[in-house]
Order: sequence, then C-alpha cells, then structure tokens
Amino acid sequence: MTEKSEPTLQWYGVATDGKSSDAVIDYDVQDDTAGAVMRRRFVSVLPQHLIGELTEELRKFATELEQLDAIYVVDDDRKLIGYLRIRDLLLLPDQTLVGDVVRKDLIAVDAETDQEDVLQLANSRGLRVIAVRDSEGHLIGSVTPEEVSEIAQEEADEDMKLLLGISPDASSQDTPRQIVRRRFPWLAGGLVGASVAAVVIGSYEDALEEAAILASFIPIVMAMAGNAGIQASTLSVQGLASGAIAPGDIWRRLGREVLGALMNGAAVALIVAFLIAAAEFIFDIPDPLYLALSAGLALIIVTTLASVVGAVVPIILDRFNLDPAVSTGIFITTSNDVFGVLVFFSIASKLYI
Amino acid sequence: MTEKSEPTLQWYGVATDGKSSDAVIDYDVQDDTAGAVMRRRFVSVLPQHLIGELTEELRKFATELEQLDAIYVVDDDRKLIGYLRIRDLLLLPDQTLVGDVVRKDLIAVDAETDQEDVLQLANSRGLRVIAVRDSEGHLIGSVTPEEVSEIAQEEADEDMKLLLGISPDASSQDTPRQIVRRRFPWLAGGLVGASVAAVVIGSYEDALEEAAILASFIPIVMAMAGNAGIQASTLSVQGLASGAIAPGDIWRRLGREVLGALMNGAAVALIVAFLIAAAEFIFDIPDPLYLALSAGLALIIVTTLASVVGAVVPIILDRFNLDPAVSTGIFITTSNDVFGVLVFFSIASKLYI
Repeated sequence: MTEKSEPTLQWYGVATDGKSSDAVIDYDVQDDTAGAVMRRRFVSVLPQHLIGELTEELRKFATELEQLDAIYVVDDDRKLIGYLRIRDLLLLPDQTLVGDVVRKDLIAVDAETDQEDVLQLANSRGLRVIAVRDSEGHLIGSVTPEEVSEIAQEEADEDMKLLLGISPDASSQDTPRQIVRRRFPWLAGGLVGASVAAVVIGSYEDALEEAAILASFIPIVMAMAGNAGIQASTLSVQGLASGAIAPGDIWRRLGREVLGALMNGAAVALIVAFLIAAAEFIFDIPDPLYLALSAGLALIIVTTLASVVGAVVPIILDRFNLDPAVSTGIFITTSNDVFGVLVFFSIASKLYI
Repeated sequence: MTEKSEPTLQWYGVATDGKSSDAVIDYDVQDDTAGAVMRRRFVSVLPQHLIGELTEELRKFATELEQLDAIYVVDDDRKLIGYLRIRDLLLLPDQTLVGDVVRKDLIAVDAETDQEDVLQLANSRGLRVIAVRDSEGHLIGSVTPEEVSEIAQEEADEDMKLLLGISPDASSQDTPRQIVRRRFPWLAGGLVGASVAAVVIGSYEDALEEAAILASFIPIVMAMAGNAGIQASTLSVQGLASGAIAPGDIWRRLGREVLGALMNGAAVALIVAFLIAAAEFIFDIPDPLYLALSAGLALIIVTTLASVVGAVVPIILDRFNLDPAVSTGIFITTSNDVFGVLVFFSIASKLYI
C-alpha cells in the first residue's frame, strides 16, 4: 500500500492558493504562454503503483476532481514519463502496474511556449491534453480542450483587432481614456499614410486645377486599394494562423492572387466606366472616354498591386518571426492609400490632361 | 443483469457509418447548427441499471471509447433525464442505482440551435458537455470542449472575414475564380459608397477649382472616418459575440465612445494643424490658419460621427437579429466615406473659400 511520505496521488498546484495540494510550487509565467493558460491542478502518479491503488486514492480526492482528462505518470523527480486515460482506470484490472500500461504518445511543451504555438499543436495533432514542463523538465501543468478553446478565442480576437487597427487590450468596456490610449496610435499611423497620399495629391495640384473632376476619383481608388489589400491580407493572416499556408506556398498564392485581382480589377473598371458614361447624361464631363480609360486602367493596376501587397506582406513578416497581423494592419493601410492615388494621378495626368 | 434486448450501454450513432452502434438514426442537419457540429457518438444508460453493470458493459466497448466526457441517462424513449460524470463510475459503489445518483444540472439544446448560441452558452455557463436533442426531445448527440473550440475558431474567423469584407467561405487556398466570387461583391459594395462620395466631391467642383489643395484632405478625412468607425465597430461586434455587451448598455457605451472620439479627434486635428503649419514652409498655402481650422473641425466631427455609427450600428442590427458583423462591414464602409467628405467640404466651403 501507499506510504504516507510518498502518495500515489500527487497534486501539484503551481499557484500559491494551495488548496488540497500535496505540493505547491511557485512559478513565474509570462503572458500568453503555455504556462499562463495551463490548468495548474492535475493528477500525477508514479509508475511503481497499481491501478487499484490509484483508483482508491482518487476516491479520497473525489470532491476536488472537477474534471479529469488524464492522469500523468511521472518519475520520483516529477519528470514526465507518460499518461493514463481515465478509461484505463475503468477498464484495466486493479492489479495492473501503472508502469506497464503507461501511454507514451504524449505531447509536452515548455512553459515559455507561446500560446499560439500551443494552439497550432493542438489543432494539427488533434490532441486531448498537452503536458506543460518547466525549464528543468518537471511537469507543472496541463492544457486541456477548455484551455485550447480559450486560446483560440483570444488569439482570433487579437488578430482581428490588430488587423483592424486597435490595441489587443481594447474592449467595448473601455473608458474614454483607454479609448485614446488603445486606438490613437493606430489612428496616428493611418494619418501618416494619408498624409503621404495628401502630399502626392498636392503634387498634382496643376492637374486638379485643370480638371477638378479627378478629385472625385480619390475615394474610389482609395476604397478599392484599401478593400482589395485588406481582403488578401486577412486571408493570409488567417491562413498562417491555421497552418493552411506553408512557407513554400508564397509563389502559388501569388499567382492566384494576381489572376483573381486582375479579374476583380477589370470588373470594377467596367462598372466605373459605365458609371462615367451614365454620369455624362447628368453632369458635364469633358472627354469621358479618356477619363474612363484612365480610371479603369488605374483601378486594375491598383487592385492588383494592393492584393499582391496584402497577400505577400504577412507571409514575409511571418518568415522574419514578426506577428503578421500587427504589422499587416499598419503596412497595408499606409502603403495602399499612397499607391492608389499615385497610380491614378500619374496615369490620369498622362492620358486625360 | 442486463438483458440482451435492453442493453445497459446504448450507443447512438446518428451518422450512418454504423460502427458498433446499437442504434443508428438518420438525422438531417443544417450547416452551422448544434446538430451539424455535435459528436454523434455518445454513451447513454437507463436509470434502472447499477453503476457496476454500467462499468462492466463499458469494458466491452473499451476500444470504441476514445473519449468519454459524460454518460447520459435517458428513459426508455431516449428522452434525457440527466448525466453521470466519469468520476462517478470510479468513485461510487458498484451497487448504486444510476437513477439515484443521476446529475440533473445538464444543459440541452435543440439540434437546430445556431452554433453561435451554443458557443455563448458554453462560454457563459462554463459547461463541460451540452446535450443535443431532436425536435421530439430525443438525445441525438453531445457537444464537448473539442466541438466548442472548433465553433469558437470558425465563428471568430467568420466574423473577421465579414468585418473585413470577404465571404465567410473565402480562404487563402481560393482559385482565381473563387477569389472573384468571394471578394467581388464586397468590392462592389465599397464601390457604391465610394461613388456616392465621388458625387459629393463632384458637387464641390467649384470650390476645388478655386482651391485644389482641398483635394489633399480627402485621403486624410477618409482614413480617419474609416479607421475610427472600424475600430468602434470591431469592439461592438466582439463585445456582442462574447456577451460583454448587453442590450441595455447602448447608452453607456455611446457616452464613452463620444468622449473618447472627441479626444482622439482633437489630437488628430492638432497634428494636422501642425502639419499644415510645417507644410507652409515648403509649399505655398494660402490662408493656412483657416485651412487648419476647417480641417481640424472636420476631423473632430468626422471621427466622432464615425465612432458613434461604428459603435451603435452593430448593437442595433443585433437587436433586430441581423448578424452584426456582415451588415456592419458594408454599412460602416459605405456611410463613413460619404460622411467624411461631406462634412469636410461643407465646412471648408464655408470657412476657407
């Protein structure tokens, strides 16, 4: 039978609340790591014990055992050997030695592992539990489906915020001061891009004085560049997060994006040309054909350029280990505003003026 | 002991693959419902059996029992009575009657329940398993943490795509044809808004001919309106999805948004005024003070207006049972482009021209 000094059942509560723990270990964790999200209460057993002993010991802890996904098997130094499933306790004879039936197909991560990597691991391997170790290899916690679900929601919310230009901490409950702190930096970033676009437009002041109608195309060109860019970048960011995009996919992805963007750009160009033709009946538009040609050509180029930048930038950033979402949001917004007006005015000033 | 015609252990495989099921029920499910995502294999038991009988019967199915989160207790008509936890099997004496220890604190949803509602239920109640019933109240499946995690990732990805203007089906693996089908509708939607903005700008052609420099402020005003609007709407959509925003919160949320937006708008206005002052040294800008005043005032109004629209529209749409993400993306983009240039040109044409 079990000796008092060496319990069959070991509870390790890494937190210091200490409730019904046999051992409480202080452990510093960093935000958004496996160590921060892991379940800090788990059950572990030594391999020299019997299934029957384990079951009997578990009964004593019955009220503490809210959820039991796995029983970890560790050595005397609390280093991980493997695990048992709950059904093993039900299905194996009482006299079975734990060490004889321990399952070794366990995935363990270090406490410092980024929670995003834990999520990818859980998704790609379809794992029920992931063990968490400290830097010396001791078992300190467990990531179960509940934690994976939490991570998934947190990461998706974060990516969405970053892509849409808000601090990951921002929430709908923010006070006015928090609203400034968590949104202003992105508004200021957008202002930088818009100001460069403003300077580009200013440099075509002569063209605008000659044909003020060109100003009407600024929102159209900007909307198309912005939307096409953000569409492509969203899919790249999601593809990278889910593992659907492998590093080698960049050329294939690029080819499809260019073709798709050319078609979308051409469709938009046709619509705008049609709108110009229709507007001609109401307003006085000089040289509508050349205006439609300039706008159409610019829209095809801008849509394609924005899609390529949007699709590729997140993949490149990811390769340099930068968060694709954060950098994409700023990069795409800034560059596409500028590209858009630059392409349109340089074409229009040659073809139309 | 158990009779052959009335097994202690009942497996219901709603799918027709039929592997080791005692009963296979055909059941039509709709996409994105509890019935579509649920685990179609589960274990159920009648209340008149003993814990020991159940354990013994479970051993026969050992190899089929990949994951066992709960054992459902049903009546002879397969209507749900409650459930047992796996630990109950371990911890209760063999001679206990299932009906005496059945846990009744179970949440069940109908198969037609939207998966988004299942997610909210799981998140708000911290549930381990949710039972799924058909329209007659028969147990047909189970939603466990794995399914909740899947739903969470799917819903977050969908919301992100809709907010950023792409079809929820779109992926980074799309062919060029799929790129057109899954992105063009949103590009065309953006074009509508931009075209209205173009007409607004066109109506100020005289002002532009007099002061072409006003065109330079179009990207700045549009960027600020677009970004402030999308920031506020993202947080409203996420807040609604997580349950952080209750229907009654609309006024409190509005108050904070207005205050925060006024501050952000004022900060941006100061920067733009400073940029105009700095640009005066390089370019020839007539009446820079009035230009700065017009731009600054317009930016404060536009930022506030866009934030209010962004924050409130999703909450209103949600109240009318419309998906806040889908409608928000289109609504915000379209309206803020137009608002932005309208406010700026109407102020500038009065103050500056």
